[in-house]
Amino acid sequence: MDSTQAIFDELKAQLKSRDPKKFKEAFLDLHKYDQGRFFGELSDEERRLVYKYLSPDELADAFDEIDDEPDLIAEYLDEMTPKYAAALLNGMFADNEADILGAVRHDKLHKLLSYMQPVDAARVRQLLKYEERTAGALMTTEFVSVAADATVGSAMNQVKQEAQYAETISYIYVVNESNQLIGVISVKDLIVNPDDTFIKRIMNTNVVSVLDDEDQVEIATQVRDYNFIAIPVVDDRNKMLGIITVDDIIDVIDEESAQDYSRLAGVNTEDLSDNPWSAIKSRMPWLITMLFLGLISAVVISQFQTILDRFGVLAVFITLITGTAGNAGTQSLAVAIRRLANDEDSEGTVKLIFNEVLTGIITGILTGLVIFAVVLFWQKNMVLGIVIGAAMCGAIFIANLVGSLIPVIIEKLGMDPAVVSGPFISTISDITSILIYFNIATICLIHFT
Amino acid sequence: MDSTQAIFDELKAQLKSRDPKKFKEAFLDLHKYDQGRFFGELSDEERRLVYKYLSPDELADAFDEIDDEPDLIAEYLDEMTPKYAAALLNGMFADNEADILGAVRHDKLHKLLSYMQPVDAARVRQLLKYEERTAGALMTTEFVSVAADATVGSAMNQVKQEAQYAETISYIYVVNESNQLIGVISVKDLIVNPDDTFIKRIMNTNVVSVLDDEDQVEIATQVRDYNFIAIPVVDDRNKMLGIITVDDIIDVIDEESAQDYSRLAGVNTEDLSDNPWSAIKSRMPWLITMLFLGLISAVVISQFQTILDRFGVLAVFITLITGTAGNAGTQSLAVAIRRLANDEDSEGTVKLIFNEVLTGIITGILTGLVIFAVVLFWQKNMVLGIVIGAAMCGAIFIANLVGSLIPVIIEKLGMDPAVVSGPFISTISDITSILIYFNIATICLIHFT
Repeated sequence: MDSTQAIFDELKAQLKSRDPKKFKEAFLDLHKYDQGRFFGELSDEERRLVYKYLSPDELADAFDEIDDEPDLIAEYLDEMTPKYAAALLNGMFADNEADILGAVRHDKLHKLLSYMQPVDAARVRQLLKYEERTAGALMTTEFVSVAADATVGSAMNQVKQEAQYAETISYIYVVNESNQLIGVISVKDLIVNPDDTFIKRIMNTNVVSVLDDEDQVEIATQVRDYNFIAIPVVDDRNKMLGIITVDDIIDVIDEESAQDYSRLAGVNTEDLSDNPWSAIKSRMPWLITMLFLGLISAVVISQFQTILDRFGVLAVFITLITGTAGNAGTQSLAVAIRRLANDEDSEGTVKLIFNEVLTGIITGILTGLVIFAVVLFWQKNMVLGIVIGAAMCGAIFIANLVGSLIPVIIEKLGMDPAVVSGPFISTISDITSILIYFNIATICLIHFT
Repeated sequence: MDSTQAIFDELKAQLKSRDPKKFKEAFLDLHKYDQGRFFGELSDEERRLVYKYLSPDELADAFDEIDDEPDLIAEYLDEMTPKYAAALLNGMFADNEADILGAVRHDKLHKLLSYMQPVDAARVRQLLKYEERTAGALMTTEFVSVAADATVGSAMNQVKQEAQYAETISYIYVVNESNQLIGVISVKDLIVNPDDTFIKRIMNTNVVSVLDDEDQVEIATQVRDYNFIAIPVVDDRNKMLGIITVDDIIDVIDEESAQDYSRLAGVNTEDLSDNPWSAIKSRMPWLITMLFLGLISAVVISQFQTILDRFGVLAVFITLITGTAGNAGTQSLAVAIRRLANDEDSEGTVKLIFNEVLTGIITGILTGLVIFAVVLFWQKNMVLGIVIGAAMCGAIFIANLVGSLIPVIIEKLGMDPAVVSGPFISTISDITSILIYFNIATICLIHFT
């Protein structure tokens, strides 16, 4: 990493000394990921020099690599002439081009499209129509396709010509006259088979494809399970539209797991801005919502003020019971969300809830016994021990039920169960735990003391 | 998925009717991922027929796909003759072969190795030495390498011969006489360049590689950032040892994010067994540990029994304060863990804690003001409102400090900050919140009422 920084510093020096030739040579020598990183470090003034020293095509690779920040790129585009910007976008892969154009202002979009070839502009407009997180939004249109009655030799010639524009040549797709996907061959097949072999003789007709409106999570699962480098996207008549490459699938997997993680904590962990104000703005609504939900627990406790006044020691164990049950409920929630993501049949759902409830009963009884012994030893009060032990047991059981049942219900309603956050479950579990605790306390302490 | 199940059923029927030829043909037509899934569904008896009908090489692909369950495969190996098992392992990719052999019993291992060619056995022994989660443990040894003074034509011939054994031919690695890695070309480069071009003229000498003892998380980051299909592994003298392919990197990313998720919830969400006893066994230690830590909160409250007896209403707000602060602390924890994973300089660490503390102060003040207003309106008691509001503010501030500081300290100690679990932070935050609440209450209520 340090050596890369040294190269970056040298590149900046070349910009400063206004040396276009040396700069261009050294810049194009970088891996395109590093080109992107380097570009991101530049000042306004340095960027303007880069636009002067590099052609749009030469800069396009770098822009392909900073595609995860379309808003930022939209700002860069404002710094260029519309002609340069349009040519730059044209040099990028279609999926990234569409991501960026999705982020530019409407008037700017029209201007940029007007500088493109009509056919390119039409293709981009088409890609812009797809909903986010679908195959259509992820796919790129740069793939190599051949006819079934082509030979290996002619296919190889075609690959030679198209390779530099294709995002991957690991797979070559076989289509019929109507552009329908009928098979696939790998570049390995092209290399090992004699030139006069017909493609239809060696193609695999058992080709896995996804529909253009398919959800990105389903696609990621298929690519991961089948170890694909790319997966073809077709429309509802099986016409070949594009491909999704494994690097974009990795981004999907990262995005989805980061989202699940964020939701479990009730906070957007992906907002990496260093500005505490944006953190406050994103966390406050959630904290205040949980505060008002949590107020229910306060109202419930206030209903038991009489018994609290008589047995002040009850207050001592409130936090222990709600905290332990909250931990158990969060465990159930996390297990339920992962299970629901991995396995979708409804038999599994019933089994899931059954297991969580059984786990809740057993862990509840065991934890209850432990705390009973502790309270007995500490407070020398058998009835109090029984109250705390029984309350702990019941609170854990209900927390497990709540933690597993709520995500299942959310899924049955057709939503993603991962929207149920950890704080939500622990706040609900606080309320149920207190209800159980004070009801058991009322019954036992009033009647047996 | 349903059509695949139909094919599986047909295959089973062919096994039942003892039709080796039809079975073999239909089985080999499946994608190897489906071959692996199909094999996993078979009964003992059916598997024995498969060993009879398929050669070890024909079954090897299926076994490459069920590599995530080495213990299960070790059991399958016990069903085969050692000769068949050794040949099957030989037909698998070296990384998977080593994973499985790492799971078989010691006596069995020696027997299997004795059936292999000495050179293969030596290679496997070498791979078995690498520590888990390092490049060496992930890599496979099936790659294509060429000399720098070879031509494109001769390299292409070599690829033709080795392609069927290589795990990927997307990259061809260039090595010198001492087998040191000096460059890389893509299969694209081979295809588009004329046959008489020298490899050294077109190779990229700026090749990114990893050391054999490098941690898998670092490798995953590089593959993701650079969008590699594979990354070469070298020893400390830059000798080429193997490659890690992107499909294994996806498994690493999945494994790591599942681990982070599990830790945030304080539960192993990856244990997908349907047995509630294993769930209980894995959750109990954690629940009991947190129970005893939580007992501190009970002890603390018991120290304030006098003021609780005088102002019973204080008990009403315990859960609200600890719950809200716990939510805030979990938010800070999740943000801190993600930040520390993404960014490693110590300047960032200071900034992280500063931001979390500032966020804690502001969200604490705002939440405190809201709850002050609620309590004032509900309990008609200004002093109580001030106590609850101030305690809420202080508890949130400290929870944010604890949630961000503890993972930072853990990282400074050289450990993975993700080991800090959500339940741990919320239990600690319970204790600090109670201390703050009752101290503020003591000061205000004793002096101002």
